[in-house]
Amino acid sequence: MHGRVPGLLILNLLGTFIFGLSGGFLAVRKRLDLFGVMVLAIAAALGGGIMRDILLGNTPPHTLTDWRYLAVAAAAGLLVFLQDSRIQSWSNIVKTLDAAGLGLFTVTGTTAALTAGLGEVPAALLGMLTGVGGGALRDVLAQEVPMVLRGEIYALASLLGAAIVIAAHDGGLPMLPFDLLAVAATFALRMVSLWRGWNLPVALSSDR
Amino acid sequence: MHGRVPGLLILNLLGTFIFGLSGGFLAVRKRLDLFGVMVLAIAAALGGGIMRDILLGNTPPHTLTDWRYLAVAAAAGLLVFLQDSRIQSWSNIVKTLDAAGLGLFTVTGTTAALTAGLGEVPAALLGMLTGVGGGALRDVLAQEVPMVLRGEIYALASLLGAAIVIAAHDGGLPMLPFDLLAVAATFALRMVSLWRGWNLPVALSSDR
Amino acid sequence: MHGRVPGLLILNLLGTFIFGLSGGFLAVRKRLDLFGVMVLAIAAALGGGIMRDILLGNTPPHTLTDWRYLAVAAAAGLLVFLQDSRIQSWSNIVKTLDAAGLGLFTVTGTTAALTAGLGEVPAALLGMLTGVGGGALRDVLAQEVPMVLRGEIYALASLLGAAIVIAAHDGGLPMLPFDLLAVAATFALRMVSLWRGWNLPVALSSDR
Repeated sequence: MHGRVPGLLILNLLGTFIFGLSGGFLAVRKRLDLFGVMVLAIAAALGGGIMRDILLGNTPPHTLTDWRYLAVAAAAGLLVFLQDSRIQSWSNIVKTLDAAGLGLFTVTGTTAALTAGLGEVPAALLGMLTGVGGGALRDVLAQEVPMVLRGEIYALASLLGAAIVIAAHDGGLPMLPFDLLAVAATFALRMVSLWRGWNLPVALSSDR
Repeated sequence: MHGRVPGLLILNLLGTFIFGLSGGFLAVRKRLDLFGVMVLAIAAALGGGIMRDILLGNTPPHTLTDWRYLAVAAAAGLLVFLQDSRIQSWSNIVKTLDAAGLGLFTVTGTTAALTAGLGEVPAALLGMLTGVGGGALRDVLAQEVPMVLRGEIYALASLLGAAIVIAAHDGGLPMLPFDLLAVAATFALRMVSLWRGWNLPVALSSDR
Repeated sequence: MHGRVPGLLILNLLGTFIFGLSGGFLAVRKRLDLFGVMVLAIAAALGGGIMRDILLGNTPPHTLTDWRYLAVAAAAGLLVFLQDSRIQSWSNIVKTLDAAGLGLFTVTGTTAALTAGLGEVPAALLGMLTGVGGGALRDVLAQEVPMVLRGEIYALASLLGAAIVIAAHDGGLPMLPFDLLAVAATFALRMVSLWRGWNLPVALSSDR
């Protein structure tokens, strides 16, 4: 998966950096110390991929043994720690990049699961876990109900991307263009739902 | 373990469904959206067995690669989402089925650990983890102190079932009747303690 | 790692006992029942090493299959449950022993990662995870923001110990004296920072 396309490493490191920023922001908001900021940055950036690798039996996880992932995630945490107030004003840029990271991690996670011989349903699940798992770990460590469970079209956008990758794989289609399409579709659905304020429904009965 | 007895698959899927309902109920009560309901249902239904499989090195976990488990857990979540108010009135039925699921998962988890060559103490621990782990993951994701830590005779009933399986295994006794005895004993202890309001003690000193 | 030095087993069991006490104390404070006290004791004592073993693919984890670790952790939980008020007055002794346990677990975790062929950065990370992971799991289960994220020089002391082990390993130096030095350095930095009230900085912008 990694290295299949030379540009993938750069894209993966970019996604790692973006998710690292999200961990750093939450940590600063929760008034964690410098170490706590670094840990949440690393957890958010690497957590989803590490959970996927543990479930696939790919141990030790690739992102743990390749120091570049750790370095990029830690650098994101440090940057937030030092420049938090300035970066907060980049909020829209970060949300945009986060949507791109979601698409990218979903595609690499789904591909890794298919490569390991998993079927379509588990591959989609592991693709989503790669995309949303780091953020969920970040939120659990910071004692928040994981954002992905609460609202907005986030996991659904990830599921869309996973479905495209799986459909292309099953159809024997060339992966690269469909991988890019999957990243773009996840990105687009996430951005449109942010822009339009779309949400998934909450059970009616909970209002009674 | 799976498939050792043909009926086991059906019983396992029934247990998966029941634990899925418990995840769905908690998610609806916490006002999570549709995706959150599905995730908590899957986490509650598959979490304990997946943790056991990770610890045993059985990756990818069986319940993740067999789409029927995912489908049954997701169906339980969807059912709660759509029919929550009606299902809540089944509360006693659900508690009864949950006690049966606890017994069943404890037996399959303990058996899996013994089959992997583990000793008695770790096998009992993994049996209990299979029985109670999914519920604990469900509660941590929903930001509740895991129910199993707080009260009632729940884990102790699981331990009783695990002990029966291990004793039969060590004694070279035929497994099927003792597996059924273990499920029944776990079920009975759980139901009686619910009915009589039994609890484990809390340390006295915490009141000072 | 285990058994490399005969005395290591005794030191490891001592560290297990100490971390078990920390889990028991938190559980009693949170008014968990007897089972909850035992679970938090075991989680705190074995959690860090088990996470490391899962990441390294060393399954089933050594501390799960060797009943002595489970027995010592459970005994620590039981002791706290029965003697909580008396042990609380040992607070300074426990903090001292905890610092020793942190140093010890850091060294064994770093060594295990180096033995598995990991590079320096991941080895340091896994050494820290071994040292602080059990406490983090304990806190997440009890619904607290992990202490290690919030303050005091705790993880940094662990990092210092890991760095010493790695430097000795890279330099081809005899491990035993440098292992002892690493334990001592972690212990000393942790104790001095407790004594002087040293903390890591919190991002300034969070005060705005």
